[in-house]
Amino acid sequence: MHDAPDPRLADFADLRDVELRKSLEAEHGLFIAEGEKVIRRAVAAGHHVRSVLLTRRWTASLADVLEGLGDRVHVVDDDVMEKITGFPVHRGALASMERRALPSVAEILGGAPHPAAGGAEAGEGRTGGDGTPPEGSGGERAAVPRRVLVLEDLVDHGNVGAIFRCAAALGVEAVILSPRCADPLYRRSVKVSMGAVFSIPYARMDDWYNGLAELRTAGFRTLALTPDQAAVPLDEVEMTERVALLLGSEGDGLSSRWLHEADRPVCIPMSPAALERGVDSLNVVAAAAIACHGLMRRGRAVP
Amino acid sequence: MHDAPDPRLADFADLRDVELRKSLEAEHGLFIAEGEKVIRRAVAAGHHVRSVLLTRRWTASLADVLEGLGDRVHVVDDDVMEKITGFPVHRGALASMERRALPSVAEILGGAPHPAAGGAEAGEGRTGGDGTPPEGSGGERAAVPRRVLVLEDLVDHGNVGAIFRCAAALGVEAVILSPRCADPLYRRSVKVSMGAVFSIPYARMDDWYNGLAELRTAGFRTLALTPDQAAVPLDEVEMTERVALLLGSEGDGLSSRWLHEADRPVCIPMSPAALERGVDSLNVVAAAAIACHGLMRRGRAVP
Repeated sequence: MHDAPDPRLADFADLRDVELRKSLEAEHGLFIAEGEKVIRRAVAAGHHVRSVLLTRRWTASLADVLEGLGDRVHVVDDDVMEKITGFPVHRGALASMERRALPSVAEILGGAPHPAAGGAEAGEGRTGGDGTPPEGSGGERAAVPRRVLVLEDLVDHGNVGAIFRCAAALGVEAVILSPRCADPLYRRSVKVSMGAVFSIPYARMDDWYNGLAELRTAGFRTLALTPDQAAVPLDEVEMTERVALLLGSEGDGLSSRWLHEADRPVCIPMSPAALERGVDSLNVVAAAAIACHGLMRRGRAVP
Repeated sequence: MHDAPDPRLADFADLRDVELRKSLEAEHGLFIAEGEKVIRRAVAAGHHVRSVLLTRRWTASLADVLEGLGDRVHVVDDDVMEKITGFPVHRGALASMERRALPSVAEILGGAPHPAAGGAEAGEGRTGGDGTPPEGSGGERAAVPRRVLVLEDLVDHGNVGAIFRCAAALGVEAVILSPRCADPLYRRSVKVSMGAVFSIPYARMDDWYNGLAELRTAGFRTLALTPDQAAVPLDEVEMTERVALLLGSEGDGLSSRWLHEADRPVCIPMSPAALERGVDSLNVVAAAAIACHGLMRRGRAVP
């Protein structure tokens, strides 16, 4: 039994303090997986376990994951867990896992190794711009992606996680993040994604202003999703072999820079009655779900 | 300036204490609207304001709403607001509003008066089973709905709100709730819906077990949304004049009772690669968004 503060439990401190967690996780190159299912998915994706904090009733079902971790397994009572983490952990088990270097955007667009195929051991830093794959990645390469989501400056971790879950379920093959987009490996993103952040390759742009140039060079048609009902409906836009769908932030949508840079603005048509009543948009997760479904449906129609 | 506890501010107490709020709101027949936009939408829908709690910087922009409320307007500092409500209210203005009697399911399916057209002044109780409209409703009747969502036992208020927002944006004309489904007028539902809970008529069933019988009697084809990929894809199912789409709870989906009672199970096809990787479902809001979009798209194809 442990009581906070204990340096061995520092990875799990104050999980609801977003600013503290961001700096702690960046500094140590870690992230938190919550609950048996998500922990298993992180392990299956090749992430190394730093340590595990759990209550006694989870030790049996996670026995195989805990094996070999020795004194990096910390079994505590519910109230101690709550004291350390700052909230009641309903899923009873938390794992601190090592982040790996992210591939570059070029690597992702060229068919980066699948995350589950192995990877480097550092933080969210990445390999040099020379296009070499991340250190330690010797695994199978992913298929070159044809359907990609690009997320611009989403601020809500839950939304990022939910969009990864949709993307993974609906056949999107990679995700590209703007430099300021919320972290897919933040605890809440991971949890809401149900581990989908481990199953879909992603990269973060270095340069927001020219961020779309690399996509165009790689042959992607870029579609900017907008609530503007004057745009072409997504169901009717011309599809090409490679399509990147751009989704903007929760409050303001896409920046005017990206809207102008994109090949085409596209919309999800809304009910005329709703527009009359002033219901003027869908939330970004609902829009992403409809758009991913549309891409998959249209994808099947392409010979 | 006020300091808690003050009986005049009791409507706004401990807004994050779900159990306390549920009993307080049921007892007094009230709900809380948060932020200028949502407060305005509640007022526009005909809800009476009981009282308003806000910080000084919101008094100007809400002046027309506050007019005539006299001593039922409480202007406080941020820290007092946080002390009363139990959390930092970023949107700076809260209104306690009167609930109205809900129409019955039969009334909704027959084209109940639009919520904005006026209504009775009681709690969530409703008129007798004799089919008479709620007291005080003398307004225009809504069109008889052709596209309806039925929510079974959703527990998360945010999900209920998000689904109302999708439904309103995508042309769903009414929502039916199972007896135990989370309350659309709970603060978080209202907030996440962006006020869509005021713009779409809804009713709550009395009887879960035979809940679908009334829909069938009214001529609805009932489609049960399931992650089971052996079901007919929603895009391919035969549509009829009146369609009710059934959505199940976050954890377990639809009950087996409703799955068996429904006319047809339907699914949203997922990517084969995702199924191989064990990504086995969409969250209920994403599924609802795709399904509502599908209903609207299919609706347009019907002559």
